[in-house]
Amino acid sequence: MSKGVTSKKEDYSRWYTDVITKAEMADYGPVKGTMVIRPYGYSVWTGVKEAFDGRFKETGHVNAYFPLFIPKSFLSKEAEHVEGFAKECAVVTHHRLMANPNGEGLVVDPGSKLEEEVIVRPTSETVIWSMYKKWIQSYRDLPILINQWANVVRWEMRTRLFLRTTEFLWQEGHTAHATPKEAEEEARRILDIYQEVLENVMAIPVLTGLKSEAEKFAGAEHTYCIEAMMSDKRALQAGTSHNLGQNFAKAFDVTFQTEDNKLEHVYATSWGVSTRLIGALIMVHGDEKGLRLPPAIAPHQVVVIPIGKSDEDISAVHDYLSSTLTSLNDDGIRVHVDDRLTVSPGFKFNEWEMKGTPVRLEVGARDMEKGSAVVVRRDTGEKSFVERDNLVQEIPKLLDEIQNELFQQALTFRQENTNTVENYEEFKELISTEGGFVRCGWDGEPETEAAIRDETKASIRLIPFDENPEGMTCIYSGKPAKHEVIFAKAY
Amino acid sequence: MSKGVTSKKEDYSRWYTDVITKAEMADYGPVKGTMVIRPYGYSVWTGVKEAFDGRFKETGHVNAYFPLFIPKSFLSKEAEHVEGFAKECAVVTHHRLMANPNGEGLVVDPGSKLEEEVIVRPTSETVIWSMYKKWIQSYRDLPILINQWANVVRWEMRTRLFLRTTEFLWQEGHTAHATPKEAEEEARRILDIYQEVLENVMAIPVLTGLKSEAEKFAGAEHTYCIEAMMSDKRALQAGTSHNLGQNFAKAFDVTFQTEDNKLEHVYATSWGVSTRLIGALIMVHGDEKGLRLPPAIAPHQVVVIPIGKSDEDISAVHDYLSSTLTSLNDDGIRVHVDDRLTVSPGFKFNEWEMKGTPVRLEVGARDMEKGSAVVVRRDTGEKSFVERDNLVQEIPKLLDEIQNELFQQALTFRQENTNTVENYEEFKELISTEGGFVRCGWDGEPETEAAIRDETKASIRLIPFDENPEGMTCIYSGKPAKHEVIFAKAY
Repeated sequence: MSKGVTSKKEDYSRWYTDVITKAEMADYGPVKGTMVIRPYGYSVWTGVKEAFDGRFKETGHVNAYFPLFIPKSFLSKEAEHVEGFAKECAVVTHHRLMANPNGEGLVVDPGSKLEEEVIVRPTSETVIWSMYKKWIQSYRDLPILINQWANVVRWEMRTRLFLRTTEFLWQEGHTAHATPKEAEEEARRILDIYQEVLENVMAIPVLTGLKSEAEKFAGAEHTYCIEAMMSDKRALQAGTSHNLGQNFAKAFDVTFQTEDNKLEHVYATSWGVSTRLIGALIMVHGDEKGLRLPPAIAPHQVVVIPIGKSDEDISAVHDYLSSTLTSLNDDGIRVHVDDRLTVSPGFKFNEWEMKGTPVRLEVGARDMEKGSAVVVRRDTGEKSFVERDNLVQEIPKLLDEIQNELFQQALTFRQENTNTVENYEEFKELISTEGGFVRCGWDGEPETEAAIRDETKASIRLIPFDENPEGMTCIYSGKPAKHEVIFAKAY
Repeated sequence: MSKGVTSKKEDYSRWYTDVITKAEMADYGPVKGTMVIRPYGYSVWTGVKEAFDGRFKETGHVNAYFPLFIPKSFLSKEAEHVEGFAKECAVVTHHRLMANPNGEGLVVDPGSKLEEEVIVRPTSETVIWSMYKKWIQSYRDLPILINQWANVVRWEMRTRLFLRTTEFLWQEGHTAHATPKEAEEEARRILDIYQEVLENVMAIPVLTGLKSEAEKFAGAEHTYCIEAMMSDKRALQAGTSHNLGQNFAKAFDVTFQTEDNKLEHVYATSWGVSTRLIGALIMVHGDEKGLRLPPAIAPHQVVVIPIGKSDEDISAVHDYLSSTLTSLNDDGIRVHVDDRLTVSPGFKFNEWEMKGTPVRLEVGARDMEKGSAVVVRRDTGEKSFVERDNLVQEIPKLLDEIQNELFQQALTFRQENTNTVENYEEFKELISTEGGFVRCGWDGEPETEAAIRDETKASIRLIPFDENPEGMTCIYSGKPAKHEVIFAKAY
């Protein structure tokens, strides 16, 4: 256990917050439930963002920016949407402050009351579809494949850094199509991208599938999702992709002229991932010593720590590694040399362990004499001596290995903690003791789903694409199962 | 004059809005004064953003993200800041909507009133300094060189796309230093970056200097700025960099332990550029046919328009240019092939002229027979025939030429419209007829500045770094000039 970090086993939730604080990932802001993403956390988020953004662009998407403010009336235009999003949101009612006439400080100027209140976007379907109405006339204007990187606000009572904050950062894609087939393909294409980035970049294995009606997005025809298992065996919804059908097009009356000259409502999708993913990254890979970052996403993949106390010591190490560092840099390896003299090498070891840098390179006088360097893996703690001239070959291999092993570890953990049950007794026993993912039959009834949820706090995370309900019975009702589903307690 | 675009001479303001609309740069959002940045506009902004972001990082800055919401009380902590920013801002007073008990739609739930109202950030000094108080203890924690890319809100009554909107995007740097010298160097370093990007990337010449007391940032010791001349001869403040002294450190009680063990308040800077720069880009370079984008910032530097009507025609052109396009791409030239069959080549010419793509390449059957291509410059309209095998050499040269000439044109225009005057009669005459920048002596008195402003609507844009007030007199008071200044009517 690292200094100042609560043990994972002792108190998972405190461990999580301690790691975030000690690794300088984030901090709470002054308004309750708001979050400051500190530079190190933001650089991790930037890596995640770039991984997604590149893939969105490769598949024909473009970025744009829509307003933060939504007229209150827009939220009630789509029948289900209003239920889902009108509840806890920030409402702007005035546009001016004035000096307090009765004392110190500032008060809201009552004369600045807005005619119609505006809402700080909880999600942007409504404002975007009000614009699409202006932009779409003909099939020639379709498809529209727009993504936006933005902040959104949902007024949360119980908050947790990265996982649930009043304001968070995310991307939200909003596409418009001429046919239901295209919309469906789009929703699935994006889900594939989400899975690919989570697994290959963030080393987080995910299950993919469909949400139940109760868990789908308010306003969607159906919602696809990726679900990951955290290291406390709870589930985290890591991304969703919605086929919105014609719901928003109808709510905002967005029609287009088809190739054969008919007027039809447009088909839509929306999809998003958020800074919540950073929470997942921490929980899936973190250990008692802090973060463990997959090399593909680590701001620094290698940190070099010169062992020495003087400027001369440091510059000797710089000279010794000069051509090695140039070569690594040319190969696209992100190396950081920590040459601070204000703190000791031991302090640096702890700091970079806490921050999860995959590989540490220690070089001191003895190493230089021997023509080698000490290479330490963050994931396993394994230490090895590598000849300097082999570093350029060995480090990229090592980084690949770490990337793969982090993924494999998480996958094995999920597999070991996924169980199939046949009856409700087993189910309750598992959920209340072992936890994890529970695979079972469900009769497809919302009442069943609600009852299980109320009784056990486990919810249907998804109906996996690879379900095979044939011959299964519903654990709750005993009726023939309509779906095979994954239940879990979730964040 | 292009179809649907008002002539610049007839109505500059309508020309501006028409170009933005026709080039699909932006649109008004549903809440008054808000703006939608459309994909094309956003890709221009992304180019601007990357140019700045790279330079900030090269000079040691890191990105972070601070909350959108600021407690109301924070705005009144710094005496001058409250005056400047507490006025027109969006005030969140409630956090929940509910179904209207008396009819349709949604109403604000009175039970969700916040104990303390929160403000949507107009700028982030206050929230950031409240965090710096937690993060800074010792000189070892300094400097902090943080930048943030974010949206901010200032409730504006009269809005104009990109130039003045209720919400806009910007970067805001907030740095903390141990000495006043370092803070001053930082403020100037950033101003140099601003100038460099404006001039070398956006091809917009700028004047650099100091703001007068009346025009400086609310809460700053002094404000540096870059000012550009638009093609209607009005000035636009394109970026500001503030030396905040110890003002915010004192307001938020941020002290640090110095190397010799004393306790001192931290020194600060803040600095920003915004999507307003896109407005400048349009106004400085745009012409009767629409945008003219400098190659360094153009989303597409070259657009290829195959002349033909069938898939076969198009693919013949693709084959013909195949290795040329590969080579250009390898050289980092951004080429877009517009192979739509739903619109005519003539339509495409107009569209890409409107969107300001620097170079158009037309290739049809005849060109292919001759082994050449038609190359058209957007800036001059000049048409030339270039042998296909020379394109890879010629296009980069041409792009450089266009970049330089756009800058030179704007520079010449500014020089031709900058005049020096010696008395107030000349001044008033110039400001009310020719406009432009007027250079003259000023006695340094706020009263003088205010009087001139009230009488002529021209304000002091800046005190240029290269001022030489020696021997000059104030045009208004006749007293010896304290400063040589630039007056202009401004956006």
